Amino acid sequence: MKRRKFIKSSAVAGVGLTMLSTPSILFGKDDRRVKMGMIGVGLRGRNHLHLLLQRDDVDVVAICDIDPDSLAKARKMVTESGKKKVLEFTGSETAFKDLLSEKSIEGVIIATPWRWHTPMALAAMKAGKYAGVEVSAAVSLQDCWDLVNVHEATGVPVMIMENVCYRRDVMAILNMVRQGLFGELTHLECGYQHDLRDVKFNNGKQPYGGGVEFGKKGFSEARWRTEHSVKRNGDVYPTHGVGPVGHYLNINRGNRFSFLTSTATKVRGLHKYIVDQAGPDHPNAKVRFKLGDIVTTVIKTSNEETITVQHDTNSPRPYSLGFRVQGTEGLWMDINKSIYIQGKGENDRWQDAASYLKQYDHPLWKKYEKQAVGAGHGGMDFFVDHAFIESIKRKVPTPIDAYDAATWSAVSPLSEMSIAGGSKPVSFPDFTRGQWMKRKSVFAFDDEY
Amino acid sequence: MKRRKFIKSSAVAGVGLTMLSTPSILFGKDDRRVKMGMIGVGLRGRNHLHLLLQRDDVDVVAICDIDPDSLAKARKMVTESGKKKVLEFTGSETAFKDLLSEKSIEGVIIATPWRWHTPMALAAMKAGKYAGVEVSAAVSLQDCWDLVNVHEATGVPVMIMENVCYRRDVMAILNMVRQGLFGELTHLECGYQHDLRDVKFNNGKQPYGGGVEFGKKGFSEARWRTEHSVKRNGDVYPTHGVGPVGHYLNINRGNRFSFLTSTATKVRGLHKYIVDQAGPDHPNAKVRFKLGDIVTTVIKTSNEETITVQHDTNSPRPYSLGFRVQGTEGLWMDINKSIYIQGKGENDRWQDAASYLKQYDHPLWKKYEKQAVGAGHGGMDFFVDHAFIESIKRKVPTPIDAYDAATWSAVSPLSEMSIAGGSKPVSFPDFTRGQWMKRKSVFAFDDEY
Repeated sequence: MKRRKFIKSSAVAGVGLTMLSTPSILFGKDDRRVKMGMIGVGLRGRNHLHLLLQRDDVDVVAICDIDPDSLAKARKMVTESGKKKVLEFTGSETAFKDLLSEKSIEGVIIATPWRWHTPMALAAMKAGKYAGVEVSAAVSLQDCWDLVNVHEATGVPVMIMENVCYRRDVMAILNMVRQGLFGELTHLECGYQHDLRDVKFNNGKQPYGGGVEFGKKGFSEARWRTEHSVKRNGDVYPTHGVGPVGHYLNINRGNRFSFLTSTATKVRGLHKYIVDQAGPDHPNAKVRFKLGDIVTTVIKTSNEETITVQHDTNSPRPYSLGFRVQGTEGLWMDINKSIYIQGKGENDRWQDAASYLKQYDHPLWKKYEKQAVGAGHGGMDFFVDHAFIESIKRKVPTPIDAYDAATWSAVSPLSEMSIAGGSKPVSFPDFTRGQWMKRKSVFAFDDEY
Repeated sequence: MKRRKFIKSSAVAGVGLTMLSTPSILFGKDDRRVKMGMIGVGLRGRNHLHLLLQRDDVDVVAICDIDPDSLAKARKMVTESGKKKVLEFTGSETAFKDLLSEKSIEGVIIATPWRWHTPMALAAMKAGKYAGVEVSAAVSLQDCWDLVNVHEATGVPVMIMENVCYRRDVMAILNMVRQGLFGELTHLECGYQHDLRDVKFNNGKQPYGGGVEFGKKGFSEARWRTEHSVKRNGDVYPTHGVGPVGHYLNINRGNRFSFLTSTATKVRGLHKYIVDQAGPDHPNAKVRFKLGDIVTTVIKTSNEETITVQHDTNSPRPYSLGFRVQGTEGLWMDINKSIYIQGKGENDRWQDAASYLKQYDHPLWKKYEKQAVGAGHGGMDFFVDHAFIESIKRKVPTPIDAYDAATWSAVSPLSEMSIAGGSKPVSFPDFTRGQWMKRKSVFAFDDEY
């Protein structure tokens, strides 16, 4: 009861956050253990499971998945880790509710198909469990509002598990931004530029490629992710970009996304892939995809910065999140791994970013480098799970919260609205209801989490 | 009379263009000489003058400038070249009209402050002279229409002298686009990203920096260019990007710009520069600039490609036109000098663009490399002047025409309208009045010009 009460009061902006500076004194972080549940143990869920099983401060109590094969693989991981046997929940799409009724569980990580993220996070909060939800957290604007409203009603935190916020270079740049190296920020770029054709299609047996099946005949992500390319035209996966940018710009904390415009290209890549791989007579060659090959979104903030966000998943191309962080004193771009700061180095010449990234390496990375490396996605995954677990241990708000989950995820439905309206500007709802003016940034200010 | 008649008929789309394939046979290109006039012999005009003086097939007959110093420097160049003395026109803002009344002049190059480009080009066409006009060709939408209408009424060509269309890598990429290496194009990026703070401000004596003066107290471009940053908020200088992109996408020739949205950042860079250089008490620290530090424009074409255009001239940064050319088979980016083509090289890895650029070097560059190098701006200037002169010699339409000048330049007023309307989408006028559906591309298909 005491814990619930604390969490409830902490949902009032700013109240709980002041405790972040001295949490270990208050809560004795080192001897606490956290009991966790896993909702979804497919490929992504098992990445998280792998990390949690390595931690001494976590007991994985229960796992849930509708797919017997995923469940078996997760069970095997638990067994091989030497940790205690876990409860298993399966058999229906609502089995996760049974997991959530387990009293001992304090937090859950939700790694399921996109459309389940919000309902599962809502149910978790209502059950009093910290909700760690994979990206994106929401599909519709109603989802976004639901996340905020249920968080406020229950006082239980929900954290969007945006791992790229913890990418080593992204955090070093955050350090540089906060130390003013770029001056006052003006323009940022980011995006999800990732050739997913082998993810959206496979042969129904392996997760990546080997065929052009999706939906019921597909395997893993192809079973559910591809339908978003059939039915939606917008930036359906924005948070790997806007998450880090949100921290650079203090979004929901003194600043906010004001409006966006989105523009989509022609629709070619996925159909072409099917025809190139399986010929024009394959039944899937008749599928009419709706998602433009490349979707370009421009966001303007209330502090008058601009952000360009790309979504580019249907074309052959090398992976890139396309970051650019620019201010009145210089800029960083990750595509050419270069930095330019006025007065440093030669005039009009890029400098290799490497020495800056090393010099401004974030304290979290300095401290946890060894644990992080090998954890998955170049170490990012360690940190996002670490932050979630440490927040639960300390019984404090998560450093990425319901308002971030709603705001970052809202880019998707808003971009769909803009494209449907001929690239018309569409305003962001203020999910904080005015609190953004007072809220302070709490993300990664020290080497704790 | 015969010539005027030919030119007049050639303005009807497609009629004269068929003659482009055999011009040397028809017109005996090698023994023709062209008599040229120069309107504006400041820094940029003297670049052109330098090139024309090197050519055996050009007689520079007359020069015009309101500034005695520029005129003297140009006169000296003519004298030192050993060529015939030129007529000089000066003394008033309308002196160019007297130059245009010189019967012998067949073409003029206009290199004056932006707001003079359109009126001078109109006057040149009305006087029956080929008009080569520096970028941008127009400031307002009315300017754009005037260029088209007067061209159609007189039958005299006007060529926007967009040198970047002839940049070596830009032309090699054009070659690759035409040979289908990128597949069907989907998304392109470009921009003018050039720290112009030392151009917009100087000490009134030298063209670049040394002070924070502009307008009447400024020198060279600072005298007139800076006022566009005081009074306008939009992409005021788009053609170095959209020109090359226009050729890649066959704009006005089977395709057209459909609409755009523009979004501007906060206004910081120019004020900060003044304060940093001259302190907060300098009178210019009171100037309220209107131009956002970075303006991002997204254009959609009728063939459903998207184009992102950046204008970024008020911040410390290395020069870059930021080209990206992407299609269903791969992409090129100039910022990292890299290419990715499906099936070539390693999966998911960029390849160095250099070998592709060499392999697909444009025939014009192969033929004229020696003349071009050292001509200015890495050789581009040679080719744009060459194309203009050769068109006059052959008495044929210029490969970049009135519709290109209007369409490319229209990005400026349209982006201003979009920004003023909160990034609302703004439609491009169809300056071809439907002819874009039938017109064929004529730009750089061989090694002639």
